[in-house]
Amino acid sequence: MKKNAFYAQSGGVTSVINASASAVILEAKKSSKIGKVYAGKNGILGALREELIDTSKESKKFIESLKYRPGGVFGSCRYKLKSIEENLKEYKRLIEVFQAHDIGYFFYNGGNDSADTALKISQISNKLNYPLQCIAIPKTVDNDLAVTDCCPGFGSVAKYVVTSTIEAALDVESMHESSTKVFILEVMGRHAGWIAGSSCLAQDSHPGAPHIILLPEVSFNQKKFLSKVKDTVKKNGFCVIVASEGIKDSTGKFIAESESKDAFGHSQLGGVAPRLADLVNSKLKLKNHWAVADYLQRSASHLSSGVDRTQAYEVGKKAVQFAANGQNGVMPIIKRKSSKPYRWEIVSAPLTKIANVEKKLPAGFITKDGFGMTKRARRYFQPLVEGKTDELKNINYQAGKMEMVAKKLKAWR
Amino acid sequence: MKKNAFYAQSGGVTSVINASASAVILEAKKSSKIGKVYAGKNGILGALREELIDTSKESKKFIESLKYRPGGVFGSCRYKLKSIEENLKEYKRLIEVFQAHDIGYFFYNGGNDSADTALKISQISNKLNYPLQCIAIPKTVDNDLAVTDCCPGFGSVAKYVVTSTIEAALDVESMHESSTKVFILEVMGRHAGWIAGSSCLAQDSHPGAPHIILLPEVSFNQKKFLSKVKDTVKKNGFCVIVASEGIKDSTGKFIAESESKDAFGHSQLGGVAPRLADLVNSKLKLKNHWAVADYLQRSASHLSSGVDRTQAYEVGKKAVQFAANGQNGVMPIIKRKSSKPYRWEIVSAPLTKIANVEKKLPAGFITKDGFGMTKRARRYFQPLVEGKTDELKNINYQAGKMEMVAKKLKAWR
Repeated sequence: MKKNAFYAQSGGVTSVINASASAVILEAKKSSKIGKVYAGKNGILGALREELIDTSKESKKFIESLKYRPGGVFGSCRYKLKSIEENLKEYKRLIEVFQAHDIGYFFYNGGNDSADTALKISQISNKLNYPLQCIAIPKTVDNDLAVTDCCPGFGSVAKYVVTSTIEAALDVESMHESSTKVFILEVMGRHAGWIAGSSCLAQDSHPGAPHIILLPEVSFNQKKFLSKVKDTVKKNGFCVIVASEGIKDSTGKFIAESESKDAFGHSQLGGVAPRLADLVNSKLKLKNHWAVADYLQRSASHLSSGVDRTQAYEVGKKAVQFAANGQNGVMPIIKRKSSKPYRWEIVSAPLTKIANVEKKLPAGFITKDGFGMTKRARRYFQPLVEGKTDELKNINYQAGKMEMVAKKLKAWR
Repeated sequence: MKKNAFYAQSGGVTSVINASASAVILEAKKSSKIGKVYAGKNGILGALREELIDTSKESKKFIESLKYRPGGVFGSCRYKLKSIEENLKEYKRLIEVFQAHDIGYFFYNGGNDSADTALKISQISNKLNYPLQCIAIPKTVDNDLAVTDCCPGFGSVAKYVVTSTIEAALDVESMHESSTKVFILEVMGRHAGWIAGSSCLAQDSHPGAPHIILLPEVSFNQKKFLSKVKDTVKKNGFCVIVASEGIKDSTGKFIAESESKDAFGHSQLGGVAPRLADLVNSKLKLKNHWAVADYLQRSASHLSSGVDRTQAYEVGKKAVQFAANGQNGVMPIIKRKSSKPYRWEIVSAPLTKIANVEKKLPAGFITKDGFGMTKRARRYFQPLVEGKTDELKNINYQAGKMEMVAKKLKAWR
C-alpha cells in the first residue's frame, strides 16, 4: 500500500532548490510505493501547523518548470527544532500530522541544521513506533556540508560571483586611470569561505581579478590587507577584492560588527564591503566602489550553473529512490570521481556524519599569504560552474496554485 | 583624401558601450572618407597625452566581438575639460594632436558632460580653422540625456534591475514567514530615477515586487516611508524596496552623502541601502536584507537587453554616417515612433540642445504617493528591456592587442 510523502524546504534558499523539489515530485509519481507528495508551506512549520500543499493539484508543466525557478516555491523557514528532550511535544505533533495524512516518507531539503532535524525525526519516529523514512536532501549556497563533495546551490552562486567579478573588474579597469582604483564585492559565507574562494576562477579572464580574496578562515589583518591593496594598485593600476561577509579579526570578532563611523559621524551599518571601503578611503585615500550581492547571488536563476542544476535535480531523484528502497536517516550526497573530465555519482551517506557538522575551506586551498586560492582549489571549483546556463525565457518566475490539503487536526498553538 | 578618426569613451562605462565602439570602427572601414580609427587610451586623456590605440591592428573578429564586451575596452575617464576661456592650452593641445595624426573626425562616446566637450571642441576647431567634425555618441546608464528617447546602456541596466528584483523578491517571499521581511536593493541614479523607476516592470512577475520605489525626484519622507513599509509587511508579509542612490531629504541633502567628490565635483554616493535598513531595524524592528548592485548593474553583459545592444551599435554606425555626410556638432539620438509595437529610428540632434542638460523622470511617470510608477512609465520602459540576451559563451571578456600609434609630439605636461 502506498504511503504519502512530505517534502519541505529549509533555511536560506538557492536558485536551484526547486529543481530538487521538481525531482522529488516527478520521481515519486513513478514510484509504486509513494502516493501523494505534500509540501510543507514554509518548511517544517507547514508540518507543525498542518499546512500541507497538495502538489498533485499542480500541472505537470508547472512541476517540470520548477527546475528553473529561484526562491523556495513552497516557502522555506528558519526554525530549528529543539532537542527531543527539550521539546518532545513538537516532535509528537509532527508525527501526529504525518499519521493524520498517511505520510510514510519525510524529505527535508536543507543544510546541516536540516540534516540534524531529519535525523531527530527519524529517531523519534522509531521511538514512537511510527514507520517513517527520513531522507535529507542537500541544499546550501555555503557549500559547508560534510561528506558530500559539493552542495546543490553552491555551483550557481559560484558562477554568479565569478561572472560578476569579471564584469565589474572590466568596469574598474576602464575607469581606474582617472577614477575608481579599488572595487570590493561582498559575498555570502559567514563561517566558510567557499563562495569568496570560488571567485578565483575569474582570474582566468582578463583582467585577472580578483587580486585579493578575504576568507573567514583567515584572520583579517588590517595592515597586511592595506599593504596588499596599495601594492596591487601601484603595480596594476587598480585592485579588485572579493570579501566573505564573515571575515573576522584576530580576536574572532566579525569585521562587519565592529564599531566604526564614517566621515560624517554616521555609524557604519553592517556590511563588510562598506567597512573595507572606509578603510581604503581613510588610510590609503584611494577612490573606491563597493557592491553587496546579498540575495541577488543566491537567487540568480538567470545565471545558474548547469552542473549545479543537474546535481540539485539528481539528489532529489535519488532521495526518492533511496526512500523507496527502504533507506532511512540518510542523505544522497555527491561523490567526485574525477575533476578533469568532471565525473560524479550520487551515493547514500548517514545523517549522523552530516548533522551539525560545518565543512570549512581546507588549508590546502588557501595560498600562503592568505589572499588567494591554490591550484588544488581551482581544480575543485572549476567543474562546479560549468554547464549551460538556461535561457532567460525558460526561467519560471511564477507561483503555482498552492492548493492546501484539508486539515484534520486541531490547530497547533 | 581620407582623414583619420579619433574615438574615445568617456565617464562611467556600460555593458554595451563597446558595441558603439565596434560599430564606429566597422562602419568607418566602409567609408571612402575615413582612414584609420584611433582610439584614445583612457578617453580624452589619450588625445591629450597622444596615447592613441591603432584599432586597425586588431583582428576583425575582435572588433566584432566588442559588441559583447562589458567595460570600456580602450579605457574611459572622468576628466572634464574646462571652458575654452579657462584653458585654451588644453584645447590647442588636442587640435595639435589631431593635426599631427591627420585626424578629421572626432567621436566622443559619453553622457551630457561629454556632449559638452564635443561641442566645445567643435567650436574651438572652427575658431582655430582646423577642419574637424565632432560627433557625440550617446552612452549613459542614467538615461538622463535630453532630446533622445533613451540612452544606450540604460536598457541593459534596467533589464538587470528588473531581473534581480524579481529573483530577490522570490527569495524574500520564501523566507518571510520566519525570517527576512524587508529587502532593499540600491541602484544607481544620482539625480534622476530612471534606473530605480524601471524596476516597476518586475511587478508583472510573481510576487509583484517592488512594493516601494524611491526616487531622487521625490523628497524622502521618513515617516511616510516607514508607514508604507509597515503597511506592506502587514498586508503582504514582506516588502521589497528599490532605492536610487541619489534620494534626498526635504532640504535636498543626499540620504547617503560622503565627503569625497569625483573629478566633475559630484559627491560620491553609496550606502543608501544600509541606511534604510538601519531605519527599518531601529524604527520597525523588522528583519531585513539589503544589496548594493553598484558596478555589477552596469557591467552585466551576461544580462544585457538586446534592444539596448542594437541601439548602442546603431548610434555608433550613424555617428560615422553623419560625419561622412559632413555633419558637425551633433549626436545621433533615438526617436521613438511607437511603443507597441516598439519602433524607433535614429536622427541627428544638435549638441547645443544636449550639452549639460539633465533629463529627470517626468512627473507623469510617478504615482501620486511617490512610491510607484504610472502606466505611462511602464509603457515607456517595457520595450527597452526586450530583445534576446546574448548567450554567455558569446560574451567577450578579453583584452585586445592595444597597439599604440608612434608619438610625434612632445609629452603633455
